[in-house]
Amino acid sequence: MRILEERILKDGRILPGDILKVDNFINHNIDVPFLSSLCDELCRRFSEQKITKVLTVEASGIAIGTLCALKLGVPCLFAKKAKTANLSGELYTAIAHSYTHGNDNTLTVGAEYLTKEDAVLIVDDFLANGAALDALLSICAQAGTKVAGAGIIIEKEYQGGGNSIRARGIRVESLAKIASLSAENGITFC
Amino acid sequence: MRILEERILKDGRILPGDILKVDNFINHNIDVPFLSSLCDELCRRFSEQKITKVLTVEASGIAIGTLCALKLGVPCLFAKKAKTANLSGELYTAIAHSYTHGNDNTLTVGAEYLTKEDAVLIVDDFLANGAALDALLSICAQAGTKVAGAGIIIEKEYQGGGNSIRARGIRVESLAKIASLSAENGITFC
Repeated sequence: MRILEERILKDGRILPGDILKVDNFINHNIDVPFLSSLCDELCRRFSEQKITKVLTVEASGIAIGTLCALKLGVPCLFAKKAKTANLSGELYTAIAHSYTHGNDNTLTVGAEYLTKEDAVLIVDDFLANGAALDALLSICAQAGTKVAGAGIIIEKEYQGGGNSIRARGIRVESLAKIASLSAENGITFC
Repeated sequence: MRILEERILKDGRILPGDILKVDNFINHNIDVPFLSSLCDELCRRFSEQKITKVLTVEASGIAIGTLCALKLGVPCLFAKKAKTANLSGELYTAIAHSYTHGNDNTLTVGAEYLTKEDAVLIVDDFLANGAALDALLSICAQAGTKVAGAGIIIEKEYQGGGNSIRARGIRVESLAKIASLSAENGITFC
């Protein structure tokens, strides 16, 4: 998606460790009107599907999940990264290793909120090695929930997570696919 | 706000420790169309103000912040609860004690995203003892940012945090104010 690639080139910053920092418009100081237009496109790509729920993971996925759910007129369920006093009852959990933060997170969803009757659209800001998406897919499998597909804002295609998940028959749509990223040579898109 | 009070009575659950669990429509499995109508009302109450940014805190505040920012056509900045690899440069921080989770969180915002020219609307799902809101106000004070006010979905009025902050001259608007809450006697509103 051209407007997103241009925005990444203009506002994205490359940090040590091949981290693409987009906190000035995606995941800290969110440019909500711009992100809303990106979510329009994500929803358009899944418009032939009857989606009953949007599933994402805290914290960076919540704005995207909320905007997509608003457009689709459905709830947004976000997986929590730790069991809290607010979660009780039967839970679905799956472990995801965070590439950015260098730690493991146990993603947790209240079992009552995912059913066999649901068809979910999974959304997130980044897809790199695929650990978070893989954990969300595991949670959907535990619930017997149908996955319509995954909608991603920025995929680091060169890390392989997206294609590995596509090879399993899951539809993954990414609005920007990064082919290479380095402080020396900048960003190239697929 | 009547529709919110009715929804709390219908769907809210009281957990030990006076915790009001609203994860089935506010802060886990978010009823986004409903929350959007609540955010319409929050924005309406501040419609005479020229707001340049919405400020909230991860994770439960992000959906509310995103929906309010969408309606106002401004960015949504959310404070993070821990310093991450995605935050660098000059930061504003303030410590907030979480009543729900029983721990201290250091709320962090990139200093570049709050300026003396901004007028922010602070939003959150709950206001109880006021610790999170107080920390966000401290961050705004560090930045020299004008605070238009705070918009809250559910205030536990009996915990006193909201009135303590109002007494400092900060405008706090809450869509539902809880006067008392107990497993034995249920919920009463102000």
